[in-house]
Amino acid sequence: MATVRLLQDEEVSAEALAVFDDIRAVRGTEYVNNFWRALAHDPALLQATWERLKVVMAPGALDPLVKELLYVAVSATNGCEYCSHSHTAAARAKGMTPEMYGELLAVVGLANQTNALANAMQVPVDEVFEA
Amino acid sequence: MATVRLLQDEEVSAEALAVFDDIRAVRGTEYVNNFWRALAHDPALLQATWERLKVVMAPGALDPLVKELLYVAVSATNGCEYCSHSHTAAARAKGMTPEMYGELLAVVGLANQTNALANAMQVPVDEVFEA
Amino acid sequence: MATVRLLQDEEVSAEALAVFDDIRAVRGTEYVNNFWRALAHDPALLQATWERLKVVMAPGALDPLVKELLYVAVSATNGCEYCSHSHTAAARAKGMTPEMYGELLAVVGLANQTNALANAMQVPVDEVFEA
Amino acid sequence: MATVRLLQDEEVSAEALAVFDDIRAVRGTEYVNNFWRALAHDPALLQATWERLKVVMAPGALDPLVKELLYVAVSATNGCEYCSHSHTAAARAKGMTPEMYGELLAVVGLANQTNALANAMQVPVDEVFEA
Amino acid sequence: MATVRLLQDEEVSAEALAVFDDIRAVRGTEYVNNFWRALAHDPALLQATWERLKVVMAPGALDPLVKELLYVAVSATNGCEYCSHSHTAAARAKGMTPEMYGELLAVVGLANQTNALANAMQVPVDEVFEA
Amino acid sequence: MATVRLLQDEEVSAEALAVFDDIRAVRGTEYVNNFWRALAHDPALLQATWERLKVVMAPGALDPLVKELLYVAVSATNGCEYCSHSHTAAARAKGMTPEMYGELLAVVGLANQTNALANAMQVPVDEVFEA
Repeated sequence: MATVRLLQDEEVSAEALAVFDDIRAVRGTEYVNNFWRALAHDPALLQATWERLKVVMAPGALDPLVKELLYVAVSATNGCEYCSHSHTAAARAKGMTPEMYGELLAVVGLANQTNALANAMQVPVDEVFEA
Repeated sequence: MATVRLLQDEEVSAEALAVFDDIRAVRGTEYVNNFWRALAHDPALLQATWERLKVVMAPGALDPLVKELLYVAVSATNGCEYCSHSHTAAARAKGMTPEMYGELLAVVGLANQTNALANAMQVPVDEVFEA
Repeated sequence: MATVRLLQDEEVSAEALAVFDDIRAVRGTEYVNNFWRALAHDPALLQATWERLKVVMAPGALDPLVKELLYVAVSATNGCEYCSHSHTAAARAKGMTPEMYGELLAVVGLANQTNALANAMQVPVDEVFEA
Repeated sequence: MATVRLLQDEEVSAEALAVFDDIRAVRGTEYVNNFWRALAHDPALLQATWERLKVVMAPGALDPLVKELLYVAVSATNGCEYCSHSHTAAARAKGMTPEMYGELLAVVGLANQTNALANAMQVPVDEVFEA
Repeated sequence: MATVRLLQDEEVSAEALAVFDDIRAVRGTEYVNNFWRALAHDPALLQATWERLKVVMAPGALDPLVKELLYVAVSATNGCEYCSHSHTAAARAKGMTPEMYGELLAVVGLANQTNALANAMQVPVDEVFEA
Repeated sequence: MATVRLLQDEEVSAEALAVFDDIRAVRGTEYVNNFWRALAHDPALLQATWERLKVVMAPGALDPLVKELLYVAVSATNGCEYCSHSHTAAARAKGMTPEMYGELLAVVGLANQTNALANAMQVPVDEVFEA
């Protein structure tokens, strides 16, 4: 269960429905996933989030698969169940192989380990790392 | 300051010095950064961490630059000052351009935002995301 | 499932039962929620937590609804499933409207986003912010 | 130090300078704080972040002071040094009294405490909390 | 559900099966828990994680029960559902009494509370704490 | 700098001074560390926090050194600079040896690593772990 009901198409405002339609068009599927159906209670927040996602995850200096891998890394670190599932699925759809996933997990695990060590010891930053 | 003194070469055990030497050889520089000098109080932990880092960050299904970007994403999410600096520097050394960094920041920011939204609303995972 | 059994009234110590009774009296309901039934394994911890909650969440310079909104914001950021549900319900009981909830989510999302950006770039604090 | 240089007005792009000017106009001060000077390396990210901040933090169903209090609560929970300072200063500028700040701290402390307890015991969510 | 299928013995590689066998031998049980069955998709990551766990959790300057208590404390703080369950069970198997668990929870709760307070106020570190 | 001024003895209320005096008496030192001097702006919060600390950290089913180790583990995981320093110093004062600290770091590092892995893969909890 969520803290809000997941809204069906016939329950949402015209503004929210337009976002749903854009999600469908951009992704080439009729399926609108639960995150958006929860956000639809606040059409302005729904629209702002979706519009930002489209811009940020588009191809650029980093390719879309790398961006999904980064999303999975952040979601795992935050312990976000929903986002770990949705973005792992998205990464696979964009070409993440089992080998890539294994290496992603290894890096995420190691980074969380050494982050904890550096924070525990409060290691001072080396001057050579200064921008 | 750190919770432990940063050890100089002449203060560490033979086992720790061997790790320092390997760090120098692998990286092609005389400089050994503070993280390793703090860990050197426990030579076994130093060695295990360095050996693991060599394996995990080596080229594989993901290239080393992507792995560094993932490391930065995790470090930023954990708020690790040391790791944010050291791995941002490492990413630049491996070819991260300002454009890539800007996009990395945008993804990390967005992921932390939507992680918080999904966690706040406790959105249930869609069946379509099942492995 | 929890890591401990949820204790029913007839299973708890007299000290724990007195806390349950106070929860009922203060809230005007017979229902004692699972968090307290789990904590009841350690009556001293149960009592200390409940006594503190009564003091902290009482009306003061901040009104009780604002305090619940703050609780939801922290719980979402920590990814606490139980607390996100219980305090969102409590906020609604104290008058949180759907519009307020939408704005709360927007602030929590944005704050998590810019926290990640500031941490990633390790932006130095401006002198003007000094107390 | 930051991972990027803080850019002065004469170093930034026209797009970034327009954002700086808008920050000045909206806030009624010449001072542009470090966060924006760091983000200015990526004018598009700078603009998107600022535009979103203006919308989210504007008066609405929640007043601007409450929104700043929420921002401080999230920033403290994430351990964001920069944001804790900047948003505590902003909250004071919007009317947060010492009494309010004390109560804010008390709620943030308690919420982090009970979040940890609920997560440790993995307390199942009560059906009565369902939306 | 997990993001990967949990692998049964007859599905895993010889390398992964050898790890499963070692887990069984070391623990004196036929049962291999889900974490390892998920990791088995990447036999190298499975092996490295298990080998490290054996070393780190072995008796040393700290006894194994204390190490499990520390594991529970970290897992609760990170909000890791799986690890909170598995390491609480492990701590009990190693002798954690209900009284110990209550005190563990009290410390974890208090530490998360004062961490949030210290982070919120950004209290400067006293010189007397310098190593 | 902190978000509040650190208060000297001659600036605090009688209630806060009584807490300072109790800290001195219990610890057998004239030194009152910065955390309490920051909290002194809100005497009620200062007193409640100190009183709770005395109870929770006292000898019980767990000895005070183990409790300090747990405090360090939580503080490292949360990335709390102040608490990592103050509780590492406290642990040393209570008998933590360099060997113990090395093992503590190893456990904290490993736990953060496997927490991230379990969260990334969203491994379902085994029935055998049920309380």
